[in-house]
Parts: sequence; structure tokens; C-alpha cells
Amino acid sequence: MNQDYQTLTSHIEKMAALRAALTLFDWDTETTAPPKSLELTARMVGQLSSLDFEALVNDEVRKLLQRLAEADDLTPAQAAVVRLLRKELENMEKIPPKEYRAFCELQARATSVWAQAKQNDDFDAFAPVLADMIGYVKKFAGYRRKEGQSLYDAELNEYEEGFTKEVLDPFFALLKEKIVPLLKKAAAKNASFDKSVLRRRFEIEKQKEFNRWLAGYIGFDFDRGVMAESEHPFTTELHNHDVRITNHYHEEAVENAIFSTIHEGGHAIYEMNVADELTQTPAGGGASCGMHESQSRFMENMLGRSHAFWEPVYPKLKEYFPEQLGELALNDFVRLINKAEPSLIRTEADELTYCLHVMIRYELEKELIDGDLSVEELPQAWNDRYEAYLGVRPQNDREGVLQDIHWSQGSFGYFPSYALGNAFAAQIYHAMKKDLAVEECLRNGDLRPIRDWLKEKIHRFGQVKKTRQLLREATGEDFNPQYYIDYLTEKFTKLYELETE
Amino acid sequence: MNQDYQTLTSHIEKMAALRAALTLFDWDTETTAPPKSLELTARMVGQLSSLDFEALVNDEVRKLLQRLAEADDLTPAQAAVVRLLRKELENMEKIPPKEYRAFCELQARATSVWAQAKQNDDFDAFAPVLADMIGYVKKFAGYRRKEGQSLYDAELNEYEEGFTKEVLDPFFALLKEKIVPLLKKAAAKNASFDKSVLRRRFEIEKQKEFNRWLAGYIGFDFDRGVMAESEHPFTTELHNHDVRITNHYHEEAVENAIFSTIHEGGHAIYEMNVADELTQTPAGGGASCGMHESQSRFMENMLGRSHAFWEPVYPKLKEYFPEQLGELALNDFVRLINKAEPSLIRTEADELTYCLHVMIRYELEKELIDGDLSVEELPQAWNDRYEAYLGVRPQNDREGVLQDIHWSQGSFGYFPSYALGNAFAAQIYHAMKKDLAVEECLRNGDLRPIRDWLKEKIHRFGQVKKTRQLLREATGEDFNPQYYIDYLTEKFTKLYELETE
Repeated sequence: MNQDYQTLTSHIEKMAALRAALTLFDWDTETTAPPKSLELTARMVGQLSSLDFEALVNDEVRKLLQRLAEADDLTPAQAAVVRLLRKELENMEKIPPKEYRAFCELQARATSVWAQAKQNDDFDAFAPVLADMIGYVKKFAGYRRKEGQSLYDAELNEYEEGFTKEVLDPFFALLKEKIVPLLKKAAAKNASFDKSVLRRRFEIEKQKEFNRWLAGYIGFDFDRGVMAESEHPFTTELHNHDVRITNHYHEEAVENAIFSTIHEGGHAIYEMNVADELTQTPAGGGASCGMHESQSRFMENMLGRSHAFWEPVYPKLKEYFPEQLGELALNDFVRLINKAEPSLIRTEADELTYCLHVMIRYELEKELIDGDLSVEELPQAWNDRYEAYLGVRPQNDREGVLQDIHWSQGSFGYFPSYALGNAFAAQIYHAMKKDLAVEECLRNGDLRPIRDWLKEKIHRFGQVKKTRQLLREATGEDFNPQYYIDYLTEKFTKLYELETE
Repeated sequence: MNQDYQTLTSHIEKMAALRAALTLFDWDTETTAPPKSLELTARMVGQLSSLDFEALVNDEVRKLLQRLAEADDLTPAQAAVVRLLRKELENMEKIPPKEYRAFCELQARATSVWAQAKQNDDFDAFAPVLADMIGYVKKFAGYRRKEGQSLYDAELNEYEEGFTKEVLDPFFALLKEKIVPLLKKAAAKNASFDKSVLRRRFEIEKQKEFNRWLAGYIGFDFDRGVMAESEHPFTTELHNHDVRITNHYHEEAVENAIFSTIHEGGHAIYEMNVADELTQTPAGGGASCGMHESQSRFMENMLGRSHAFWEPVYPKLKEYFPEQLGELALNDFVRLINKAEPSLIRTEADELTYCLHVMIRYELEKELIDGDLSVEELPQAWNDRYEAYLGVRPQNDREGVLQDIHWSQGSFGYFPSYALGNAFAAQIYHAMKKDLAVEECLRNGDLRPIRDWLKEKIHRFGQVKKTRQLLREATGEDFNPQYYIDYLTEKFTKLYELETE
């Protein structure tokens, strides 16, 4: 092995341990820790973060990475680790430590100001903090951007390398052109989709049992994973032998937990399938936010909302809830779980409207960072766009511009990954169907061939290959949003019995 | 503040964070982690342990502690932190690193050899490893001991400062003289204690509910604490605002979980009551193993097995289990939970026999370390003592000398703390009764005055005062085992209607 890489390994192991500790504290805070523990625990988490920072940002690691950037005897996995650590180190070093500390302080304050403002429906209380936050984001993007690059493109690059405005503008334009009218046609026929049967009382203990079974059914390995409860469902991992998902159960909305299980299960199976040689290294996780989201959305929507998926699964669900679902036929169940309803809240959106929620945020972020939209004009701009694209107008900022936490954390350029994930999923689905009789697998209740395909083409590589390369190699072509448009158009035209153009 | 202490603080915070992370990993392994995660997680835990070692064992901390040992402007809390860190550092530095690593390796191997040997009832497989382990323990004790000190006293000093053989020999002699005959008289009358009613089926979900209620009743604060499940009940803490206990439920032994709740609750309340200025420092935990055990045993036995305690609580238990307990009167319930039965397994022992199990281990350890008992002679010596003191003889080593994990971990000198804890508890109880109408508090269902007394006299000091000092100040006299003898004699003479001498 390259001598420098050998030396780097001890630093990597230290970082891996500290990051795992931070992950475990996060997990514990969301699932277990007592309410009054947080303040004292935060001090310890702060200490561990500092140790993690020092483990990367020091002369020895800097010199090792400089030399390793030139090395020609690294394995692909080692080269990826070096590339990722260099990017992380450079990003940190470009920002003056004083400014970074001020940003972290603002971030902590901004999220709590935001939470308060949301609770009180008081955008004015949040506006000055948001303006400061945008100031920092622009300043830092200025430090990081390549010559000639726009500030927003520099931010986009942090989340999804290679997906600049040049790629995203036509993607969202296509969505606007095709999906906005499709949604309007569908929504007009919603009277025949009555979800009240899914609003009966579904005992939570039984839901838990069913969802545990369902997680195992789709391929979540309980020998290497844990399923717990938290306020909002999420996935996290310590390494590929310890991947954890959470759920949240609602007595009168049985489908919520079901689709959380399938969604988080999709994320988790990705992490469980990362190669052993990568786990516990910086190249150990999924390739990018968008690629991760593609795996959860593929599992949740392409598979989990399909008729074929529910053919063997729905009878099982009925066994758990014979009284509630007795009269609801499989076909009707599948119609209901696919109902497309324009709504105000992104996190509650259905498959068809979801990308439009993201589109609105993309347009606004772009104008806030690269354009001249001011924070004062933001609520109005938000509401106008909801009305134009979704046909619904927020009655207050709480269900409007204040709904998401992201901007208060300084995350600009992250939202597009949610839409990209869906588009990647559709492109991957198209490619998979050339190799595999996907629906037949679903009907047979055997998802293994599907998981094996994903593992072989995507999961095992962790972050060794970048998202765009993975997509190219797995599907045989570069990013092509047309598959997503086609998928949605075909599915919802059929579901809503719309006239084809 | 003393400048050196100020500087030391940043090191202390680092250690506190790393130790909290290690504690959290332990907790997670026992309560949550998936079965196949352990191997990869162990690597991370090893890394964090190394970081913790380096945080203490380095030139800067060494020099700071040297100077601080001479400082005269430290608060009692600061002085305690310096004393504890110096002791820890010195202990580590006296052992050559190479030998310490070899010991750690042996330790890891020995516990798994022991587990295997226990499973196969094969002492011969364990004997050579145990002999090696004793070799290391003697060697390390040799490095640590003060001039003229015996090796076993040096070990005892690690767990319970000031409780040398000179103190323990008369303590155990008194137990042997008084408790062995008392147990024999009681055991002869056991026919009238029929526990079968407690062996009915007690639904685990209901047990959980009741034990959660019970934990809160005795004073466990769920805003600052968590109760979960694990194979063996234990208590752990991240700081005084995050204290955690576990339990294990047996469907056909309802009292097991109940007394685990009260026992671990006693440990937990101690930790919750440590002063805020001490938590997250090395002086933040309980004063010693023995003092900790005194708090759990006081809660479990002196309070939790008393008639007065159950007067308000038993009706509540009956509400949960009306069918199982309907015909069992309070008096009979209290008799059954106090039944004294000579048995082979320490962890299942009742209040009266428990100290005799410990006495046997004390005698054997002393002879193994300071005397000439060989490992080969150990099983026979073990069995002979069980027969002599408890009147029962193990039929195999699995229920004999192989039952405890401690020796395989190299813990010699730890067992006596278990017995000391009981004796401290009796001495504390005696002192408390001078200030408080303890039984009246119990009858009224208000344990707060009892907790307040313990907090004021013991808990809040953390490790600022040593155990023997705490005991002296809380009870007005030095360690006096007579209170324990009197307590047991009075309680079991009455319970078993024995003739008084």
C-alpha cells in the first residue's frame, strides 16, 4: 500500500470514530434521550465536533493529502477517499475560522428564531436573521466558487456535483411545462378518490407489527439494522452493519407509516449494500443527496405505490386490519395511495405534486442568491408561485414560506436534490426494466433481484463514483429528465383515466 | 480561578465528551444495536478509548496536575478533580504500556474463554487463562502498592479506598459468626413460604407499565432519565441530566423486574442528585462502588422490601394484576419477597444470603492473590465453602466457580464492595431514622424527605468526599458493620418468628 495512504489511515479511523459518535448522539437525541438532557449533552457534542475538525484540519493531514493527490498507485477506493477529504479540507480552509464560528452561532440562533417565528406565524421576526444568513451563504459561496461560476452554482455544487443551473433550468422548465397541466387535469377528477376509509382507527401496536414485517419484506436486514420511533422519520448509519431507520405512527392515517417504512427502507438498503472496503471511510456513504433520494423514492413510489407491489402485500395488511379494510378492494386501495392533491406543505405532498414544491424553492433560491429578490418580497413571491403552479394559495406564512427549516440552517441549493432524486429514480427504473421483469418480481413477492441489480449498479460503489457517472454507467446515458416526465404522465393519465394528447 | 485549573478545564471537557461517547456506545450495545454491528463498532470504540487515553496521558496534563497538586487556591470540587485525575494518571503510568496492552488483549480473550468454559462447564479450559490473569493482577498490584502494602490490599484500594483487609477481615468474620447461623435457622422454616403465586403468568406489557409507574414513584425523574430493556439490568449516565436504567422482564417472576427497578432506581437517583458543578467532570459520579451499591441496596432492601413501603404500593400492583394477586394479602406478599433461601447463584440471592456469597469470594481472592491457593484448587475450595456457609454444594462448576464474569476481566478486590454497600446502607438507615420518620414517609407514599436527606448528606458531593468521610459525616461515626448485623438479625428474626437469643 502507498506509504502516505497507510499513514492517512490512522487519521481516517480517528475521524470515522468521532463521526460515528456524533451520529450516535444524533440518533439518541431523536429516539431516546430525556427532554432535559439536551443542554448538557450539547456541550459534549460540541467537543466531539471540535475533535473531528482537528482530526482533519491539521498540517500532517494537509501534507499527506497534497502528496496523495499526485499519487498514481491508489486503488479507486483510496483515490475517492483522498478526493473527498481534500474537498472537505479545502472548503473548510477557504473560510476564515472567525467567520465560520460566527456562521455557526448564527445557524444555532436562526433555527430557533425560525421555529419561534413559524409557531407565531411571524415572518417579520425571521426576516432579518434570514437576510444575515443569505449574506453568509453568498460570502462563503464567493470563497468557494471557481472563476466565472455563479454563487448559486457554487452552492449547488456542494450538494450535487455537476448539476448546475445549466442542467437544472431545463429540468424544471420541463416539469413546469408538462406536470403543471397534468396536475390540473388530475385534480379536477379528485371527487372520486375518497380517502375516508384510510382515516379509520388503525391501532398503533398493530401498525408497528405490520411495518416491522414490511421493512423485512422489502429487504431491511434486522441483523444489521434497527427500527425505532421519532418525531420525523429518518435514516442514519454507523457503518454498513449498523443502519437505522425511524418511523412515526398516526392512528388515523395508516398509510403514513407504511410509506415512511418503504422510503427510509430504500435509504437504508443503499447503506447496507455499500462495499465493506468503503464503510468506516469518508467514501462509505451514498454518492450524493440526490442519489440517496433516488433510492428511497424508487422504493417508495416506483415500487411501493404500484399495483404489482400490493398484490401480495395487501392481503397481509388486511390480515392486520380486517375491520378497517375489509370492504376496500386492492384496486381501490392502490388508487387511494396514489391520489394527487395540490397542497401547501411539501413534506405531505404526493408523488405528482412533490416536484412542483421543489421547483418553487429552486426558483426562489436562485433569485435570492444570484438575482435581486429581497427577503421582504419573499412571502409574496412564494404565495404567487403556489397559486400559479399548484392552484392553492397559502393563507399565512406558517403554511407558506416558513414551513421548511432548511434556509434557517443556511442550506441553499439542497432542495433541488429532492426533485433530482425522483428523476434519477425514473431513469434507473427505465434501465432496470430492460434487464429485469420488475413487476413480475413484485407480484411474486421477491424483491431480491431488484435489490441485487441496485447493489451491483449503484449501492456497492458508495462515493467512489460520482452521481453523474453512476447514473451514466447504470442506465447507459447521461441524466435525462424525460424518463421522469414520461413515468408521471403515463402513470397519472392511466390512474385518472385522462385523455391522452 | 487558578490559571492552571482554567487550562486543565479544556482537557477535562475533552475527556468528558469522549467518556460520554464511550458510555453511549455501551448503552446502545446493550439496549439497541443490531446483533451483527458489534465487530465494526468495536473498532470505533477502540479508537475513542485511545483518544481518551491520550487526552489524559500527555505532558501538558501531567505538568498541570503536578503544579495543581501543590496549589492552595482550589475549591473542594477542583481539588477532588485534581486528586482523581492524578490517581488515574499515576496508575496508568506505573504500568509499562507494553504490559498494559498485553493485559487488555488477555482480558478480551479471557472473557470469551470464560463464557465458553461456563457454557461447557469446563473449568480446565478456563484455568490457564485465569492463572495468567492472576499473574497480571499481582504484577500490576506490585507496581501500584505502597511500601509494605500487600498485593490484595493494593487491589482493594482501587475499588474502595481505605477498606483494606484490616477492615474487611473483622467485617466478614462478624458476618460469618452471626449470619451463617441465622440463615440456617431461617432456612429450616422455609416450608411455610410458598412463592408459587408469584410464578403465575404476569403479562410483560403490564409489568412494563407498572414498573414505569414505580420508577417515577420512588423518584426517578423521566425528564432527566430513560428506562429501557437489556439482558441484565444496569444503570449508566451521561451526566446528571441524563441517567439511564434498564430492566429485564420475566413473565413468571413478577418480583424480578420490580426489585430491579427499585435497585437501579437507587443508583440512578444518586447520579441525578450529584451537584451541577461536578457533573461532566471526573468528580461527577458516585463516591465509590460500595457507596453506589449502598444507595441501590438501601432503596431495594431497607425501603423496597419493607411492609411500610408496600402499604400504599401493593394495592396499585394488585390493580395491574387482580387475577394473579387477588387472594394474596399484603402481609403474605411482604413475607414472600423476603424469603431467605440458601442458593448457588450470587446474582439471584436474597437479602440475607447475599453477603455470604460475597464473603466466599473475598476469602478466595485473598488466598489467590496474597496466599497460596492455586487455580487448580479453586473449584474444590469454592464448593467446600458454599457447603459450609450456605449449606448447599454446587453440582458443577457452571453453578459454582464459573458463574461470575469478574475474575476473567481481571477484577479482583471488587466483590467486597457489594457486601460493603449493604453494610453502609444499614448504617445510613440507622442514622436517617434519627432525623426522619422513615416508615411514616413510606406509609404516606411520600419518599421525597428520604431522597432529600440522601441528597443533602451523600449524593450531591459526587466524588468530592471519599466514601469513608461521607459515611462519617452522614452517620456521625466511622464504618461500623454492627448496624448491618443488627438490621438483618432483627428483620429475619421477626419475619421467621425465630427465638431471640
